[in-house]
Amino acid sequence: MIHKPGNKEKLYVIKIGGNVIDDPNNLEPFLKEFANIESKKILVHGGGKIATAIGEKLGIQSKYIDGRRITDDETIDLVTMVYGGLVNKKIVAKLQSVNCNAIGITGADANLLPAKKRPVKEIDYGWVGDVNRDDLNFKTWKLFLENGLTPVAAPLTHDCNGQILNTNADTIASVIAVNLSAHYEVTLIYCFEKNGVLLDVNDEDSVVKYLDPKKYQQLKESNQLFAGILPKIDNAFGAIDKGVKEVLIGNSSQLSALINGESGTKISLS
Amino acid sequence: MIHKPGNKEKLYVIKIGGNVIDDPNNLEPFLKEFANIESKKILVHGGGKIATAIGEKLGIQSKYIDGRRITDDETIDLVTMVYGGLVNKKIVAKLQSVNCNAIGITGADANLLPAKKRPVKEIDYGWVGDVNRDDLNFKTWKLFLENGLTPVAAPLTHDCNGQILNTNADTIASVIAVNLSAHYEVTLIYCFEKNGVLLDVNDEDSVVKYLDPKKYQQLKESNQLFAGILPKIDNAFGAIDKGVKEVLIGNSSQLSALINGESGTKISLS
Repeated sequence: MIHKPGNKEKLYVIKIGGNVIDDPNNLEPFLKEFANIESKKILVHGGGKIATAIGEKLGIQSKYIDGRRITDDETIDLVTMVYGGLVNKKIVAKLQSVNCNAIGITGADANLLPAKKRPVKEIDYGWVGDVNRDDLNFKTWKLFLENGLTPVAAPLTHDCNGQILNTNADTIASVIAVNLSAHYEVTLIYCFEKNGVLLDVNDEDSVVKYLDPKKYQQLKESNQLFAGILPKIDNAFGAIDKGVKEVLIGNSSQLSALINGESGTKISLS
Repeated sequence: MIHKPGNKEKLYVIKIGGNVIDDPNNLEPFLKEFANIESKKILVHGGGKIATAIGEKLGIQSKYIDGRRITDDETIDLVTMVYGGLVNKKIVAKLQSVNCNAIGITGADANLLPAKKRPVKEIDYGWVGDVNRDDLNFKTWKLFLENGLTPVAAPLTHDCNGQILNTNADTIASVIAVNLSAHYEVTLIYCFEKNGVLLDVNDEDSVVKYLDPKKYQQLKESNQLFAGILPKIDNAFGAIDKGVKEVLIGNSSQLSALINGESGTKISLS
């Protein structure tokens, strides 16, 4: 394997989901570890159960068509409040308290993540936005990173016509990582409740430490991987194909070990 | 009157309250006029009635002690959601749609507005933050303004220890205006539902077009001003004493006329 000259600066794009967000006992230690990363970094957070809980109190039911979640008028207001306000600002305030100069954003802010409302085909998903990595406002992401700011992105984009849109946090993390790969050496990290890609979903010690395309093909062919993890791995290789250096998948409670290679699954080309 | 050399760039700091925020028929035209201001600008918004309405649905009652609003644990979460999420991001998305590169912020974001929790004396106001103009993060405000961004500030600050605090929007607008006066020629504008400072509160045509300290003293001594407006005027002169060039008070539906001097009350030293 030939390394490219190491002239790009390191950047971590790290995604967390409900298991971290919903539990202060997970969130606070995670944010401390995150703040301790010396390199440039971006945090992308999902929503968590709190939106559903608040929605129920407000009489807003989660809506599904054929198992797909639908974002109607009241749901987009709900997630704008909860993801863009409550969750995002709590994370930002906590990070500020541990010396991380965080700035909370949605895709509308500084037009950082313009998107297109998903076209209505068989299903009308409502106010859901699809982001294209080439549309990202690279200049402003770079402005923030080069001035010591750590962006904290809520899973919200906008259509440039005044409408906030709901966008999957995994996807946002991936498009940011790919777009910024033009300038930085990007490691994309997906933190979740498991220790990594597992050979046995019930055994947290069965982590696959390393996946390259060849090994992935072998494991898939011998049916050794849980079907639920396959899209995540496919997306990881997709990001790597488009310029991301490596993707790490692992437990949110082990962020530094994940970064040091002592924990989780590392996905890369070789 | 001797003008100082005009070497400072113009900056407008504009505050809007509930009458604009709560009614889309007021908000959209206001935001278009705001977006059309060619100079650098900052928008500060209050909360509006929506927080109370959502709070009631969530079973969160507004709490008062001796007529003073108290911000307890559930209220700070409520206003963080509603002011920092729903209201702020809707404004940002609308501004983006009319070619204004808005970025929504609370005081926690990029540590733009650090504050101190109000000390408990006779009354414990709860999670209320007092801001000192000297504590503002001038460097980052300037970074945003100099890079074509228009900050949109929610009435929220933080204590630097992880806690979001509720802070009066008028006060936030004033401290921003004063702090940035060191670098910009600042006009501070308070938009509200009246046409300006009125000699007769029931007559929108009785606007006092111009107030300097001498005229203000005369009008006060002859009891020609409604008592409710006096603190606003005192605060305006306070800001001017600390470096703000002028304060305009007027109707949110007449922003350009206000800026052009065709409407509202202009408060300045001479």
